[in-house]
Amino acid sequence: MTAHAMTREVAIERVDRDVRKRDVDRVVVEAPLQLRARDTPVATIMRTPGHDLELVRGLLHAESVVADAIAQADEDAVEIDADPSAFAARGLLASAACGVCGRVAIADLERRAREVAADTKLAGARLADLPGKLRAWQAAFAETGGLHAAALATAATGEIVCSREDVGRHNAVDKLVGWALAEQLDAAAHVLLLSGRAGYELVQKAVMLGVPVVASVSAPSSLAIELAERFGVALAGFVRDGRYNIYSHGWRIE
Amino acid sequence: MTAHAMTREVAIERVDRDVRKRDVDRVVVEAPLQLRARDTPVATIMRTPGHDLELVRGLLHAESVVADAIAQADEDAVEIDADPSAFAARGLLASAACGVCGRVAIADLERRAREVAADTKLAGARLADLPGKLRAWQAAFAETGGLHAAALATAATGEIVCSREDVGRHNAVDKLVGWALAEQLDAAAHVLLLSGRAGYELVQKAVMLGVPVVASVSAPSSLAIELAERFGVALAGFVRDGRYNIYSHGWRIE
Repeated sequence: MTAHAMTREVAIERVDRDVRKRDVDRVVVEAPLQLRARDTPVATIMRTPGHDLELVRGLLHAESVVADAIAQADEDAVEIDADPSAFAARGLLASAACGVCGRVAIADLERRAREVAADTKLAGARLADLPGKLRAWQAAFAETGGLHAAALATAATGEIVCSREDVGRHNAVDKLVGWALAEQLDAAAHVLLLSGRAGYELVQKAVMLGVPVVASVSAPSSLAIELAERFGVALAGFVRDGRYNIYSHGWRIE
Repeated sequence: MTAHAMTREVAIERVDRDVRKRDVDRVVVEAPLQLRARDTPVATIMRTPGHDLELVRGLLHAESVVADAIAQADEDAVEIDADPSAFAARGLLASAACGVCGRVAIADLERRAREVAADTKLAGARLADLPGKLRAWQAAFAETGGLHAAALATAATGEIVCSREDVGRHNAVDKLVGWALAEQLDAAAHVLLLSGRAGYELVQKAVMLGVPVVASVSAPSSLAIELAERFGVALAGFVRDGRYNIYSHGWRIE
């Protein structure tokens, strides 16, 4: 369908109750696409490569921005013939599309965040128990099926200390981070649990808070794994029914 | 946990194969929260009400924006004591958080989009068959579990004419819209199918394209339902195993 790879193989550790072994897993590729209007960068879109011109065309349509021409500059950039001020005038183009932002590069994060240096570890059995504990907290989800949840649990005991829900998964994490900041929580002693997928921006929020372990009940993206690897965060995915995959810093999970 | 309602009851039609009856369903509330910096609106966050101050605190932290004070102005607005230019300098605050945008009001959409006026209808049996057809198209998802898919199918025959996948569900729809525009597709004769939840912005993209039916395999939000109702779009949710719920304009589903 496309010349770009939409998925990539990564080395993982696969855990099934007491059995832990090295394996490979196939994850979805998440990579930045820069959008430039007459040579001025106006947005960076975190997307799965492929159909980039359609993506930009659809995005411009949603934003009611008229472009006379749309052309792929290279595999990481699309050039459009439109006035860059059209984006400023409407607010950032970024805003209507999930995962779009103007400064997504890891380099930017490196200026703002530090590697999670704490030597925090978590027992694998406690990790596996987290989704069940989260379900007990998730009252509204059971009612509607429409809410994302995020929770913080102690690494030492696996006890959930706070859970937040929202129609937007980024919002659920932001609410949780806001709570942790207000409580002056020792983030380095906690685990972030996600009810959905682990994309770049959710791991970014964990790094910014200083959380050493992120556990998702679903799939991680390629860039989320790279970010977790770079910043010292253990990333576990598909945490379900006593099984999970470890994508980075497996030494934190015992 | 909060004074705000996170969920709301709505009137629906519940369809289980040949049985169709009026019922109520509980959906997650999605509503705009305006963020104002020293009286200047800097962003509007689409969120589930509750824990609004935590949400803003977490969002500011992710954006490395320092605020001296954060206070709830009313149930739809939060005031922060920070220089509004801090948001412009970093690109819109909106950008890092899914579902955040500066002009989300239905009023804004009304200036840009028209009601979907076509009298297009779709046989219920064809609607129920769509998720199975989408799975056959969704090659990469089967591999990774990490991709969202969106597809367009004809209302007349239920045949999928295009499917797109992406790590971001908004991106998958934008790619599809970009394809439809390039193909000059008669959107009024087609159905938009979503592999995930139906939030405000996805229905917005359907309205902008002029698609009269949106079918989601998962839950809709309150604001997505309001938007579909307002713009003449039939919205079906939880389309699975021969069952589905109709949230708006049920006359389009026969």
